[in-house]
Amino acid sequence: MAKELKDLTKRSDNYSQWYNDLVVKADLAEQSAVRGCMVIKPYGYAIWEKMQRQLDDMFKETGHVNAYFPLLIPKSYLSREAEHVEGFAKECAVVTHYRLKNAEDGSGVIVDPAAKLEEELIIRPTSETIIWSTYKNWIQSYRDLPILCNQWANVMRWEMRTRLFLRTAEFLWQEGHTAHATREEAEEEAQRMLNVYADFAENFMAMPVIKGVKSANERFAGALDTYTIEALMQDGKALQSGTSHFLGQNFAKAFDVQFVDKNNKLDYVWATSWGVSTRLMGALIMSHSDDNGLVLPPKLAPIQVVIIPIYKNMEQLAQIDEKVAGIVARLKTMGISVKYDNADNKRPGFKFADYELKGVPVRLVMGGRDLENNTVEVMRRDTLEKETISCDNIEQVVKDLLEEIQANIYKKAADFRASQIREVDSYDEFKEEIEKGGFILAHWDGTPETEEKIKEETKATIRCIPFDGDKTPGVCMVTGKPSQRRVLFARAY
Amino acid sequence: MAKELKDLTKRSDNYSQWYNDLVVKADLAEQSAVRGCMVIKPYGYAIWEKMQRQLDDMFKETGHVNAYFPLLIPKSYLSREAEHVEGFAKECAVVTHYRLKNAEDGSGVIVDPAAKLEEELIIRPTSETIIWSTYKNWIQSYRDLPILCNQWANVMRWEMRTRLFLRTAEFLWQEGHTAHATREEAEEEAQRMLNVYADFAENFMAMPVIKGVKSANERFAGALDTYTIEALMQDGKALQSGTSHFLGQNFAKAFDVQFVDKNNKLDYVWATSWGVSTRLMGALIMSHSDDNGLVLPPKLAPIQVVIIPIYKNMEQLAQIDEKVAGIVARLKTMGISVKYDNADNKRPGFKFADYELKGVPVRLVMGGRDLENNTVEVMRRDTLEKETISCDNIEQVVKDLLEEIQANIYKKAADFRASQIREVDSYDEFKEEIEKGGFILAHWDGTPETEEKIKEETKATIRCIPFDGDKTPGVCMVTGKPSQRRVLFARAY
Repeated sequence: MAKELKDLTKRSDNYSQWYNDLVVKADLAEQSAVRGCMVIKPYGYAIWEKMQRQLDDMFKETGHVNAYFPLLIPKSYLSREAEHVEGFAKECAVVTHYRLKNAEDGSGVIVDPAAKLEEELIIRPTSETIIWSTYKNWIQSYRDLPILCNQWANVMRWEMRTRLFLRTAEFLWQEGHTAHATREEAEEEAQRMLNVYADFAENFMAMPVIKGVKSANERFAGALDTYTIEALMQDGKALQSGTSHFLGQNFAKAFDVQFVDKNNKLDYVWATSWGVSTRLMGALIMSHSDDNGLVLPPKLAPIQVVIIPIYKNMEQLAQIDEKVAGIVARLKTMGISVKYDNADNKRPGFKFADYELKGVPVRLVMGGRDLENNTVEVMRRDTLEKETISCDNIEQVVKDLLEEIQANIYKKAADFRASQIREVDSYDEFKEEIEKGGFILAHWDGTPETEEKIKEETKATIRCIPFDGDKTPGVCMVTGKPSQRRVLFARAY
Repeated sequence: MAKELKDLTKRSDNYSQWYNDLVVKADLAEQSAVRGCMVIKPYGYAIWEKMQRQLDDMFKETGHVNAYFPLLIPKSYLSREAEHVEGFAKECAVVTHYRLKNAEDGSGVIVDPAAKLEEELIIRPTSETIIWSTYKNWIQSYRDLPILCNQWANVMRWEMRTRLFLRTAEFLWQEGHTAHATREEAEEEAQRMLNVYADFAENFMAMPVIKGVKSANERFAGALDTYTIEALMQDGKALQSGTSHFLGQNFAKAFDVQFVDKNNKLDYVWATSWGVSTRLMGALIMSHSDDNGLVLPPKLAPIQVVIIPIYKNMEQLAQIDEKVAGIVARLKTMGISVKYDNADNKRPGFKFADYELKGVPVRLVMGGRDLENNTVEVMRRDTLEKETISCDNIEQVVKDLLEEIQANIYKKAADFRASQIREVDSYDEFKEEIEKGGFILAHWDGTPETEEKIKEETKATIRCIPFDGDKTPGVCMVTGKPSQRRVLFARAY
């Protein structure tokens, strides 16, 4: 077995270390020289590109267009919306100067004190403020609405504790920012985009999610409501995977964006924003992967099928090369991305382990006997099951298998989650159960104070008030006060 | 005629104003609240996306992969390569703090002096330094080479005079960074990517370019050689449209990146970097557009065909809608992007002017008589010629027309450029001719001093020493010293 694999920590030994190992060893990302900022390596970026392409298509299908707004935000803009600045000021990178110069003592370059900015600029932690200052010029009348813009961008939040993909100072994301004539339209948009995220998570990432609304404590800084999709990782911790915010008229008021409505009356514009980030890479890894490495859903795998030859001599390799060329061509006609790895400087065992580590969904192996029999050995990454099949009609067999793997990965994650959701009625029981991980549905009195108390005492937070599920009222497990319905608790990333 | 069009300055009146007007009025981009930073509006971004997609495909076809490196670069890294820091230190945005706090006097948020970074961070003006500090960990042996990475990113150079797309403080670009085992391989790569850029410029942007190498004065800071493609704008000024750098071992030495070669000897790694940016948007606009607005090459037009109905009443509109639905479907089967604009709140004349302004290559108009006759009026944007054609087989007619427009736009630009290149032998003649604009081929003695003198006295620079063309030696027009061949001069953006 290849060295890389032997070094991968087992999940049962140390889940956190397993994750860190896997991200680095599977060539997804690594720490950079800049504190908290990561390098996304080519294989990791290829997965992100597949996510981007799919999400971008879904945004465009729902009527959105892309645009690009400045990286830097004037400090005063950030301050316009009171809650917003409160939420982001404590962790932002500040540009104060625009020039370096040679030190007079020859010791290198220093910041030129003469090149101090009149007003400091913040590297965007999110773009509501710069975008709404722009929308002010785009919107005069109801005829200019809705505006349905998205941007793909890098943002920066100066986090103190960082982990690759899950929490980094700089990360890549998309942020949608929409402007509407009515409250109803904006609320509908925020819901629509949450549904797009849930669709993407479930049908492409093969990751089941629970949709709901955040409690006041967990709301986006400046939003009236934050909708969320929450996923459950294999270690029983929750991961917030995408959020969509109904911003009301807060940013329109902060930037004085008014419009003339159909009745010729002035009103402030209604807003939403919504985003998912490279954090989804962390969610993808932790949802499906195992002690042998990544397990990727076929729809997001950069390489869906790898073909590896086993040969005694170069003459036999040449025969296999010829046979495989035909298989590759047939797989490609089905839109399957396939790599034939006939590199002669690595042994088959090394290749097997490496492609397992990288989560390639289907592996085909062809040896001398296969050549004679017109067969190939097929292994699926999700179950590691192998069988030998005929090369006839292989493109259809592989296509069907990829679909089956996609469905099976989802089912496995959904079954796991189902086993990890339970209802709890007393706070004592809650404290016991939360230690075991998973989602807990419990009654809560709706106050920030009770939520805060639970968080302090158990490290659990309200992940969301689910849209679906049991809506029977009850009494709060902590205070005994009335509760409208059970809400979803978990410890979270 | 619509208001927008009347307000567009004529090129002959003021070319520079025409450009500024057009960028804003065609909804491509606008100035933001942050000095020198632009907002790329949805229509402009849609063109950039088409450029990106095409270039990205071409990079991947030539074996490159995408990755992502940090936005921020430690100050000390920038200083490692002496020429590099000299070239970029004078115009860079410097991050000095990582937190804001509430002012004690309640006047708002201020930079928290307690949150000063130990080492200042620079927003990348280009990423050689952060990338080579990373490559150091990726490269041990010749088996790790070549590395062929590209990144799509935003970069920042604190330019004092900015113009939308042409020169902005923040801009979007791609930067390729490759590492090789030999000088020959690296030089070949730098040439290969210049050829990719030339192919893209000519066959997608319909913009003829001259390929060549930069003189020492115009070289990228830290490169041994900079290759360039130079285009000619309609006002006779040159625009550098893409560069590819052979970096030698400079960055490998600065970051101590050595590898064991096939003979088991240690050597420094050879490097290239290459990039094109949103500046190409400026080149595209200025190459083809006219006093009516944008002229876009079909291969990069977000909307290739617009269809506009002319109707007497809603009943007739319904009939046209039905007829057009079939045409739209047939165009789409040919991969043509088509928009049917039957919005009832704008008059046809407004629509005509608007789509002309936006450079949509083909316009189809269907009125009541067309409906009876199974015809449609077709107008091509490049020549503004109109004719009435049958709806039968219209998808093939339009497809052919789009190809013809693409070719015609290129030919027009190539003919113009041919008319603007001439040879000059005396410096007096040069001074006269340079006032008329265009490219001038003249002899130069090869020294930076003479180049500098010419630049000071005439504002002309050596755009490149062309790879092709007449290579007869001569004597320098300024000093009379020997000249190996004529080089290409122009005033430039």
